[in-house]
Amino acid sequence: MSRKITVAAAQVGAVHKDASKPETVQRLIKLLHEAAEQKVKLVVYPECTLTTFFPRHLIESREELDSYFEHGADITQSQDVKPLFDEAKAHGIDVCIGYAERTPDGSGYNTSVYYSASTGQVVSKYRKVHLPGRVEPFEDANATNQLEKRYFKPGDLGFKAFRAPGLVHNALKKGQLKEGGKTDGKGDAILGMLICNDRRWPEAWRVYTLQGAEMLMFGYNTGSHMSHLWGGSQMSAEEQEKEALFHSRLVQQANSYMHACFSISSARCGVDDGKYDLIGGSSIVSPEGHVVAEAKSKEDELVVAEIDLAECRKGKERTFDYARHRRVEAYGLITEQTGVVEPELL
Amino acid sequence: MSRKITVAAAQVGAVHKDASKPETVQRLIKLLHEAAEQKVKLVVYPECTLTTFFPRHLIESREELDSYFEHGADITQSQDVKPLFDEAKAHGIDVCIGYAERTPDGSGYNTSVYYSASTGQVVSKYRKVHLPGRVEPFEDANATNQLEKRYFKPGDLGFKAFRAPGLVHNALKKGQLKEGGKTDGKGDAILGMLICNDRRWPEAWRVYTLQGAEMLMFGYNTGSHMSHLWGGSQMSAEEQEKEALFHSRLVQQANSYMHACFSISSARCGVDDGKYDLIGGSSIVSPEGHVVAEAKSKEDELVVAEIDLAECRKGKERTFDYARHRRVEAYGLITEQTGVVEPELL
Repeated sequence: MSRKITVAAAQVGAVHKDASKPETVQRLIKLLHEAAEQKVKLVVYPECTLTTFFPRHLIESREELDSYFEHGADITQSQDVKPLFDEAKAHGIDVCIGYAERTPDGSGYNTSVYYSASTGQVVSKYRKVHLPGRVEPFEDANATNQLEKRYFKPGDLGFKAFRAPGLVHNALKKGQLKEGGKTDGKGDAILGMLICNDRRWPEAWRVYTLQGAEMLMFGYNTGSHMSHLWGGSQMSAEEQEKEALFHSRLVQQANSYMHACFSISSARCGVDDGKYDLIGGSSIVSPEGHVVAEAKSKEDELVVAEIDLAECRKGKERTFDYARHRRVEAYGLITEQTGVVEPELL
Repeated sequence: MSRKITVAAAQVGAVHKDASKPETVQRLIKLLHEAAEQKVKLVVYPECTLTTFFPRHLIESREELDSYFEHGADITQSQDVKPLFDEAKAHGIDVCIGYAERTPDGSGYNTSVYYSASTGQVVSKYRKVHLPGRVEPFEDANATNQLEKRYFKPGDLGFKAFRAPGLVHNALKKGQLKEGGKTDGKGDAILGMLICNDRRWPEAWRVYTLQGAEMLMFGYNTGSHMSHLWGGSQMSAEEQEKEALFHSRLVQQANSYMHACFSISSARCGVDDGKYDLIGGSSIVSPEGHVVAEAKSKEDELVVAEIDLAECRKGKERTFDYARHRRVEAYGLITEQTGVVEPELL
């Protein structure tokens, strides 16, 4: 039985340091309207969508830093962002969006939420687990910093797969409510969220798909020219961008295949403030690891595909039937040990 | 400091059902001589190198089945295979080779060993953990079986990384023996073995690289035309072979990158008995996920590259610095749970 839905990555081009949030949210709403015209049911926005990617800057004023964060407990009620969720509800489109979250205790997280248009609520929140970069800024004043470890704590919500109610079809309309008030689940999709660097860590994909995830969604801010991080790279700027795109695409395709799930990736891209280059490459990838749709630009662009979640079954029931093939007795080190322990010297 | 070595995948073409082991071993020795001419220090042979890939057949006679297995405790002393190890020792070439192993208690394993020319001994044995296929044969007499789960037990040796003594340079000659009779390890390489389907499971790569593995080696027997396994695939034979090669290459490139190690893959390939097609594609892949060298044929072919193990350091010290970036508290399900448990119904 097919489980077709039309989904989209809403790629977002340059967002400069002085961009106002309401202005940026209007760009997101414009993409949402395009999605509605194309009968899209789910739109995935990038990581930290609402502002420039501020972890590249050393920001010592807490007031300035706080201006990049959302502070309320419920982002759908944030004055700047509420119009986006209102539009999503009006058009019946689910939304996954990333933002910087400041909690009441003052902690920072690199967060994303999944907003369900059919319930009008956030049904899942994820906080980025694999923070790249450093706590201390580079001494070289020309280097582009990556200070996520300075501004954010590692996510404390794990990788919790969730049901997107009625994303495939509206269970209530189809009369699938069972005794006890539960649906049979066939109208739902089982989803998971990652953020940027998480996509390079198969542990994250595995934990989600051990919960039956049919599709993972992630936004990213990935620098095109990171030679200062690479210890004297001899690559040209063009080669560096090509390499960054190659790695981004490679891990998305391979992990979609090895975990038998679809994936949607959404880039914050383009050139921020005239000098900070980010790769594009937003795409929708099948459980066989093939690119179904991809961005053509490094600007605001909606990447749309009709996909059939039932296509996950081939992988999940054969090559990657976890129950038949996984051997957890051989995997102990993955959870016992964080870093490397080499074999003894001979 | 560079850690350069010249390595090779020794791809092996068709091995028919009636091929004799001594004859097949002569082909392996021919490839070894080519390797010696090119100053190769390590040759990786395929999975179950010594015979046709017998798990495709339903074999009900124990005597016939046993003829595909090696029975002694030490394969270097097996009459049929000893000439290969003798040549390897004479030329100072380390060898990784796969074979079917019958233990004294009658168990079968899909095994590989690593033979060190500098010690003249097998320094590590691996038994395939991720056995694909089924216990029961297909009812369709035209189907190609995949009966590894019938003939082999899942490997019971885990993923144990090991030091290949003096593979990078001979520690003894360089006077690197320390107090207490141990080398400083700089002349060794830290290696791990996988077999075929294991390459699709990132858990295996992670366990090895949590032990500092700089390079993984694996052989494979991968069918080109597996449409009967794919539930009514509409792909042509040519498209099926392309897809099988795509998946094989994709997981090797992505896992080499995500685990910051080199990899060498070696195919048993070609057309066995005029009808069983296996993909080629033997290759050597860098820790950045790039193919450094690859087979051009589906026949006996030596694929050679000079690589620098020091190139692993970029990944191991930056993007994939496990100690800084891994968050084991989020990975629990990987070892707690073998199969899928979906989120509760709404």
